[in-house]
Amino acid sequence: MEPKHRLVIVGAGFAGLYAARKLKRAKVAITLVDRRNHHLFQPLLYQVATAGLSPADIAVPTRTFLRKQKNLDVVLGEVVAFDLHDRRVLFGDGRSLPYDELLVATGATHSYFGKPEWARYAPGLKTVEDALEIRRRVFVAFEEADRAANAQEKESLLTFAIVGGGPTGVELAGALAEIARHTLATEFRRIDPRRSRIILIEGRDQLLPTYAPDLSESARRQLEHMGVEVRTGTMVTNIDAQGVLIGDEHISTRTVLWGAGVAASPLARALSTPLDRAGRVKVNADLTLPRHEEIHVAGDLALVLQEDGTPVPGVAPAAIQQGLHVARNVLRSLRGKPRRPFHYRNKGILATIGRAHAVGQVGPFHVKGFIAWVSWLLIHIYFLIGFRNRLMVMLQWAWHYATFRRGSRLIVDTAEQWQLVAADIMRRTHEGERSLETPFPSNPPEPESTGAPH
Amino acid sequence: MEPKHRLVIVGAGFAGLYAARKLKRAKVAITLVDRRNHHLFQPLLYQVATAGLSPADIAVPTRTFLRKQKNLDVVLGEVVAFDLHDRRVLFGDGRSLPYDELLVATGATHSYFGKPEWARYAPGLKTVEDALEIRRRVFVAFEEADRAANAQEKESLLTFAIVGGGPTGVELAGALAEIARHTLATEFRRIDPRRSRIILIEGRDQLLPTYAPDLSESARRQLEHMGVEVRTGTMVTNIDAQGVLIGDEHISTRTVLWGAGVAASPLARALSTPLDRAGRVKVNADLTLPRHEEIHVAGDLALVLQEDGTPVPGVAPAAIQQGLHVARNVLRSLRGKPRRPFHYRNKGILATIGRAHAVGQVGPFHVKGFIAWVSWLLIHIYFLIGFRNRLMVMLQWAWHYATFRRGSRLIVDTAEQWQLVAADIMRRTHEGERSLETPFPSNPPEPESTGAPH
Repeated sequence: MEPKHRLVIVGAGFAGLYAARKLKRAKVAITLVDRRNHHLFQPLLYQVATAGLSPADIAVPTRTFLRKQKNLDVVLGEVVAFDLHDRRVLFGDGRSLPYDELLVATGATHSYFGKPEWARYAPGLKTVEDALEIRRRVFVAFEEADRAANAQEKESLLTFAIVGGGPTGVELAGALAEIARHTLATEFRRIDPRRSRIILIEGRDQLLPTYAPDLSESARRQLEHMGVEVRTGTMVTNIDAQGVLIGDEHISTRTVLWGAGVAASPLARALSTPLDRAGRVKVNADLTLPRHEEIHVAGDLALVLQEDGTPVPGVAPAAIQQGLHVARNVLRSLRGKPRRPFHYRNKGILATIGRAHAVGQVGPFHVKGFIAWVSWLLIHIYFLIGFRNRLMVMLQWAWHYATFRRGSRLIVDTAEQWQLVAADIMRRTHEGERSLETPFPSNPPEPESTGAPH
Repeated sequence: MEPKHRLVIVGAGFAGLYAARKLKRAKVAITLVDRRNHHLFQPLLYQVATAGLSPADIAVPTRTFLRKQKNLDVVLGEVVAFDLHDRRVLFGDGRSLPYDELLVATGATHSYFGKPEWARYAPGLKTVEDALEIRRRVFVAFEEADRAANAQEKESLLTFAIVGGGPTGVELAGALAEIARHTLATEFRRIDPRRSRIILIEGRDQLLPTYAPDLSESARRQLEHMGVEVRTGTMVTNIDAQGVLIGDEHISTRTVLWGAGVAASPLARALSTPLDRAGRVKVNADLTLPRHEEIHVAGDLALVLQEDGTPVPGVAPAAIQQGLHVARNVLRSLRGKPRRPFHYRNKGILATIGRAHAVGQVGPFHVKGFIAWVSWLLIHIYFLIGFRNRLMVMLQWAWHYATFRRGSRLIVDTAEQWQLVAADIMRRTHEGERSLETPFPSNPPEPESTGAPH
């Protein structure tokens, strides 16, 4: 006997995955839809961007993870719309999927505050591709600096600007400082990577604005100790191929990373319901859609207000709690019981700064330094999905904690891309052109050229 | 005091790297040039292609590996020609580099026997990019099969043809069989990956043609036991988007992998010296170029004849021996001694078939089965460069030996590529078109679109 109640979950992030798992034994036919074949452990994505980990260390194929769950089917595909009346999920290729109950949890993407043209100069960090692109830009910058013709150009190539002083910006700045001061310190003959400038720019008056002031201050001191220039209360007014403009000051740099704005996945608009300014779906207290109680929304896509009127933050623990809550409500409905409202339990926040420092806040307690870092480490490894990954990540961290090395420093990882990049670097060097406007030729060569020599 | 004798090494493969290391204490100013930032352990590349390992597990940044060598400089760049008269290496961007002595060791690439149009349908396995492309094709084929509309299409998607029964073809076939029969066995709801067809095609009468007949026979039996169809004495006469033609028989398949032909890097032609049919440089007995004794050629790029008239095989141990030999000759010249001729010492050959079987030949001894496999494992881990990689690879193998899992099953790894692939799969599905002729749209979207949602 097949179970009859059809639950479709769109998005295999934390909310979707935890909801699916929680319904393991429920009499529901679950279909989990994602356009990727893997679940990504986003809190460690900055480690991939900074070459500490490989993509496979923080990603699990969704099928593998859920292969024993008999009431579940994984479908790879891109959802573009919903037929709310006929209750169908619509794919970009014309396929569709009927549902009785729906969970939409497609997360968030970057927001450039109405300046989408900044995206090409300042990649953000949400996907494996983003992380590999940041990795490529950072390590190519050092290589280009090593062969740069004049001092001014070298300096521009050895300047790194990070926009946004939240956890992502702080983590990236700390990791970049380590790369410059330790990992690459002695590897070049014509440049000294230790003389790189790493600038962290935050519009508000403190780093980590959601943290208590003493923790923000500790994070700033630690970053400055590592050689990062921290600029708070400073707005970026322009980003282009030549660098970053802060008010009237122009910082000449070829590498800008974006950790500032976040917006909900555009799929929210397909739900025909009110959104907030960040594009998040305004949900009922039980995480369902107003006027569509068969639709749940969870994770970064949902705007959930707490009792004090502030929204639940877009962090992994909140997404997990919401995913589990939706699953519990699905079970309650099946048993004919009413759904319950969602309450976020803030178990604490932690941000890491470099290899042995972190700051954290657990209820009234503030933690700093090495102990906070060890807590961060243990918590992240514990929640990392899949045993092999936990073990590998722990060993790799032990290894580069001991040696300062970063084992995943491949610039490549990308079919054909490196050839294109190399060709492009050379072309630009040759033409004396320094623009990053077209990092890739718009017409990649045919696959034949892949096996090119040497 | 800077050392004055300038040695330029082009290519950071086995030959180039071992030559450079051997000259650690020599009074030579070495420049190691490569267009990649990493040395690749090619013998394990098929493990990356079949998702057993991550690229970073088998690649070390060249700079890291050689960072303590004071007489050496690493330069990232693409060599396109040589000025043999003025003794300069010429780069694609107009730069050049003077040398007193030169080692060219840029290796080999695929050869499609005069059918370059096959390349797009049948990727070979020489670079990290090749491996990730093969990985993508294999896992996308299962995903597409899972949603294929009709039985014929499913069958074509679940058929995998491997052209070439040498070590690469045998290793790929064994790993594919494991993926289909074990790794993915229970992960789909609409297809049974165990029913996949894996066909290994070899033109000569036996697999592993350089091995003794009893070992070839053992390899065949083991592959057949694993469910691989082995076709020897069979020539492929055509490859296109619909499949492979063997004589009059057409095999309908969407995934063809190439392990058949190898040709020397085209840079050989820039040396203005006679080449053999495979494009290899005919060298003197001491590995120097006729009429240019300041130029050495080593590794897969060199045609070195043994006493019995057969060429030294294009394997890693031969490249290492040649690299070391060139270094010794450089040292001898510096001391005013004559160079010595190169003699290849065949220490044995080993090929692995699946997760617990291998065949090998060490002098008069033939080894088969589990013991051969363990030898293969230990030898490869021993030679794997960099301690972190050795440890990681060993642990990952232990892990997927125990579980049959393959932890690196990310289809992605590639900036923007997966979005393009997904879009393309959908477009083709939508249009009812099944051609693989244009696996990627020729105009990738601008970087802005990277952060697309869900």
